[in-house]
Amino acid sequence: MSVSAYQSGAVLAPADVTFVTGELRPYLADLLAREQAAWQEHDAPWWDPPETLAGYLDGGKALRPRFCYWGHAIAGQGTDPLLLQASAALELLHAFALIHDDLMDDSDTRRGRPALHREFSWQHRRQGWAGNPDSYGRAVAMLTGDLAFAVAGRLASALPAPALSVWRRMVDELVLGQFLDLAGAARRDRSVEVARATTLLKSGRYTVTGPLSLGAALAGPPELPPDLSRYGDLVGEAFQLSDDLLGVFGDPQRTGKPAGEDLASGKPTQLLAYAADMLPPRGQALLARAGTPAFSRADVAELTAELSECGARARVERQVRRNVEAACALVGRAALPPRVTAALQGLALAATDRQQ
Amino acid sequence: MSVSAYQSGAVLAPADVTFVTGELRPYLADLLAREQAAWQEHDAPWWDPPETLAGYLDGGKALRPRFCYWGHAIAGQGTDPLLLQASAALELLHAFALIHDDLMDDSDTRRGRPALHREFSWQHRRQGWAGNPDSYGRAVAMLTGDLAFAVAGRLASALPAPALSVWRRMVDELVLGQFLDLAGAARRDRSVEVARATTLLKSGRYTVTGPLSLGAALAGPPELPPDLSRYGDLVGEAFQLSDDLLGVFGDPQRTGKPAGEDLASGKPTQLLAYAADMLPPRGQALLARAGTPAFSRADVAELTAELSECGARARVERQVRRNVEAACALVGRAALPPRVTAALQGLALAATDRQQ
Repeated sequence: MSVSAYQSGAVLAPADVTFVTGELRPYLADLLAREQAAWQEHDAPWWDPPETLAGYLDGGKALRPRFCYWGHAIAGQGTDPLLLQASAALELLHAFALIHDDLMDDSDTRRGRPALHREFSWQHRRQGWAGNPDSYGRAVAMLTGDLAFAVAGRLASALPAPALSVWRRMVDELVLGQFLDLAGAARRDRSVEVARATTLLKSGRYTVTGPLSLGAALAGPPELPPDLSRYGDLVGEAFQLSDDLLGVFGDPQRTGKPAGEDLASGKPTQLLAYAADMLPPRGQALLARAGTPAFSRADVAELTAELSECGARARVERQVRRNVEAACALVGRAALPPRVTAALQGLALAATDRQQ
Repeated sequence: MSVSAYQSGAVLAPADVTFVTGELRPYLADLLAREQAAWQEHDAPWWDPPETLAGYLDGGKALRPRFCYWGHAIAGQGTDPLLLQASAALELLHAFALIHDDLMDDSDTRRGRPALHREFSWQHRRQGWAGNPDSYGRAVAMLTGDLAFAVAGRLASALPAPALSVWRRMVDELVLGQFLDLAGAARRDRSVEVARATTLLKSGRYTVTGPLSLGAALAGPPELPPDLSRYGDLVGEAFQLSDDLLGVFGDPQRTGKPAGEDLASGKPTQLLAYAADMLPPRGQALLARAGTPAFSRADVAELTAELSECGARARVERQVRRNVEAACALVGRAALPPRVTAALQGLALAATDRQQ
């Protein structure tokens, strides 16, 4: 199946897409409506977390529920209520991660719209309320993230013990990955090891390996087969590498984020780790200034060009392709039903050939 | 039992204090040591969340575990591993609440030390790291809170269904209460209704009624008897009212927080709600400026004096006493073993006669 055919919808929607649109979306809508009803009792009309969260759940490719679906399909049969619950938990965990991540990075935008803390600070300004609008915006966004995390954990807590243990590891890794990301930027760490760990822990694991394992653990066996776990890490890493590339070289009109945020803050990406070895002296001097106030918009543009020229960009692109090929080969060799093999290969492509 | 004898330790430590020092503290220390071991695997030496959290768990009177202990004692016998687990979850939930609360309020201090986000931003400055030290400090503190919340939820998720349902309600109420607090300050809300709801939800419920119910739910019956639930809300409200008084009139040397933070930000406290009715015109003008940049330190001092003079302070003090008396009378009339009655009456006093 070609990626473009898949993405244009020219092929029939696979079972995981049907699961997301036909079951998960209505389940989430119903869940949030019930949260909203409980909330309205307390008469807090200036904050509508269920509505806000719905905005975070509607966009995107629902990759995590889809990986969870196939993890479940490997060992089990069809969908069951626990799969819905686990998938909803994954979507809410992702919303929490995005909201707190935007706060941690002081990002202005998300998916082409103002980041949540900006929205709330504008509400504060529009209403002429008392106090500092930016503090208010940050505080209410933080709380919205806390609530998403609480509801996600609530859904997860009702899962059977093996799934719950996968969930816990995933949450721990997400928190640690976020820390490595912050600390790597602060310390201007350009080691490949730190960049790889950050890539995997802050995003790859909870996007691919974790959801696959979660789905599998629902159906019975406590551990994902090693080949599938390896598939997950390869695709998860490639997913985040594509995201890194998109953040630097992508079209802001399509990504919904200004280009070069990661460069300006000197994030510990594999792209910059490679660049530290490959850039000529002029580029090295630019890279050394990344993350400092002296790093201008013109510097971002120049470093972007240097990253292409020195070959670091191509190296990351190759790595994405190699990871996807290796992952597809792994599931090709595994003893899986053909529809599962095809789906996992399709998802590896869908997760990494990213326009937004 | 007099409060001062109780607090000076002149009386024998009651069973709940023995539980906290003899069982809960070692349990928490062991839990954090195991977290730390898992963490060190990942080699993130510049952040030690278990050590940081230990600092948040050591101080304080462990009120929440103690209320949980007695909630359990009402229905059950002695301590069991679930009681330890629930109490540890409560302590970690409290650490999460304090850390995120300090972030939301942009507070500089906590218990006489720099607030966590300030500590991390100083670390960033000392090390001469890249990026904005304040953003870094806020981000790492936020993550530390997220981790405390995750571990708390993990402990709670293994509790039996009735206890888990108490836990969920408590977390929801805490989040909503925090929002009411932020929104009330922003909107300069001075209604008694909003102030009461905020008092109860942001702190009273998760400090008293929630822990009592959690302990009771561990032992069997899903619902706390109505009289004890009422006791919890009366003491929980009085606890937060004492905190409000302490924040305005307390000695910063003992509270570890500068006086008047709540006034400067115009928090929707019952004290200010009463003051809105009781202040003379000069005080009204001051109150109207609370929460705006025009509100100076001298204004804080003057408003503090006005709050005493107009009788609003005395009204809150009376309310604390009345709540405690009513709560003690309720448990006095309830059919409880005498040692439980005595303990709940003692705790009502200990929770509300506050110096810090």
